Amino acid sequence: MAIVDVTIIPIGTNGPSVSRYVANIQELLEELAQTYDIQSQLTPMSTLIEGEVSTLLDVVKRIHEVPFENGIERVATNIRIDDRRDQKASFQSKIDAVQAKMKK
Amino acid sequence: MAIVDVTIIPIGTNGPSVSRYVANIQELLEELAQTYDIQSQLTPMSTLIEGEVSTLLDVVKRIHEVPFENGIERVATNIRIDDRRDQKASFQSKIDAVQAKMKK
Amino acid sequence: MAIVDVTIIPIGTNGPSVSRYVANIQELLEELAQTYDIQSQLTPMSTLIEGEVSTLLDVVKRIHEVPFENGIERVATNIRIDDRRDQKASFQSKIDAVQAKMKK
Amino acid sequence: MAIVDVTIIPIGTNGPSVSRYVANIQELLEELAQTYDIQSQLTPMSTLIEGEVSTLLDVVKRIHEVPFENGIERVATNIRIDDRRDQKASFQSKIDAVQAKMKK
Repeated sequence: MAIVDVTIIPIGTNGPSVSRYVANIQELLEELAQTYDIQSQLTPMSTLIEGEVSTLLDVVKRIHEVPFENGIERVATNIRIDDRRDQKASFQSKIDAVQAKMKK
Repeated sequence: MAIVDVTIIPIGTNGPSVSRYVANIQELLEELAQTYDIQSQLTPMSTLIEGEVSTLLDVVKRIHEVPFENGIERVATNIRIDDRRDQKASFQSKIDAVQAKMKK
Repeated sequence: MAIVDVTIIPIGTNGPSVSRYVANIQELLEELAQTYDIQSQLTPMSTLIEGEVSTLLDVVKRIHEVPFENGIERVATNIRIDDRRDQKASFQSKIDAVQAKMKK
Repeated sequence: MAIVDVTIIPIGTNGPSVSRYVANIQELLEELAQTYDIQSQLTPMSTLIEGEVSTLLDVVKRIHEVPFENGIERVATNIRIDDRRDQKASFQSKIDAVQAKMKK
């Protein structure tokens, strides 16, 4: 299991707000979660998706299209993949591992 | 006010776990929050910090040093800055803006 | 046509050098260029690959496996996609567009 | 010495072209190279800058302002830092290290 952290920036919007596109992407992710084995989480800066790495990149292909489907002509997508194969890394286990090592 | 999203990867650790370094960075951020006007939040993939962009990059300079202080010789740091000047964007306001636009 | 900009960082390498893994990735890209319609270019910081976006993400899936095939247990891959659909953007046309707009 | 790899994306540009902003950033970097000890290089996907890490982040602070100075209200900046302290890593030495390890 891996985690991807994705930002999809539409270029050429008429103003600084892009939340409409992010909302459409969240809606599509809810739909995709019915057929793909993924979990997703919205943070103030990006969308995190947990699953098998090949599945995750297929999901990214799909959500990267959302701004184009809304008339945008250029999209800058940024993806960080954290893929660990010696143990299962979930959203919660990663946070827990850090907090367990912090001084009280 | 801007938000930065930072990952600091130590290169040349003996194994796949890096949570010790992330924990040290969180401890330093708690200290820095006493002198700098910043808020921070740990996600499963990165650390988010909210504040004025120049302050944020000074804070990044400081936390980027943590793995070196622990004997690591190479560090790969990745930073996304979201800097919006037409309105205040906080952690919560960004999430709220997306959720308000999603279909129920 | 799109361009991806990829870094693939092996975690847990014992020392700071990762050029062996980058070399293996370049060799694999030369092989993949015989079956996929892609162009690639090594920069001091990453590998750039030009092609159709779906192909590019399939190529990224493949090269992301290289450190695992060499015994590494965790890989941090970072991908920037620049996908522009109103006109063809090649490596050279993007550089040319910037230079044409610079003051002499 | 470290290397940073920077993309500065103006949000709200009305159309897909951003090369005008990238050109302005290159012009500013040429100016800054007269007072700071940096080298820079434009690639099809980003700007690479070589120097001491603290200097590099000061330079990034400065160039991140360019789109705002041109009327843009939101900027998404992405920075990768590669900071290696066991040996000097220059643009050319990094490429050479990879090519030396590739099979002929």
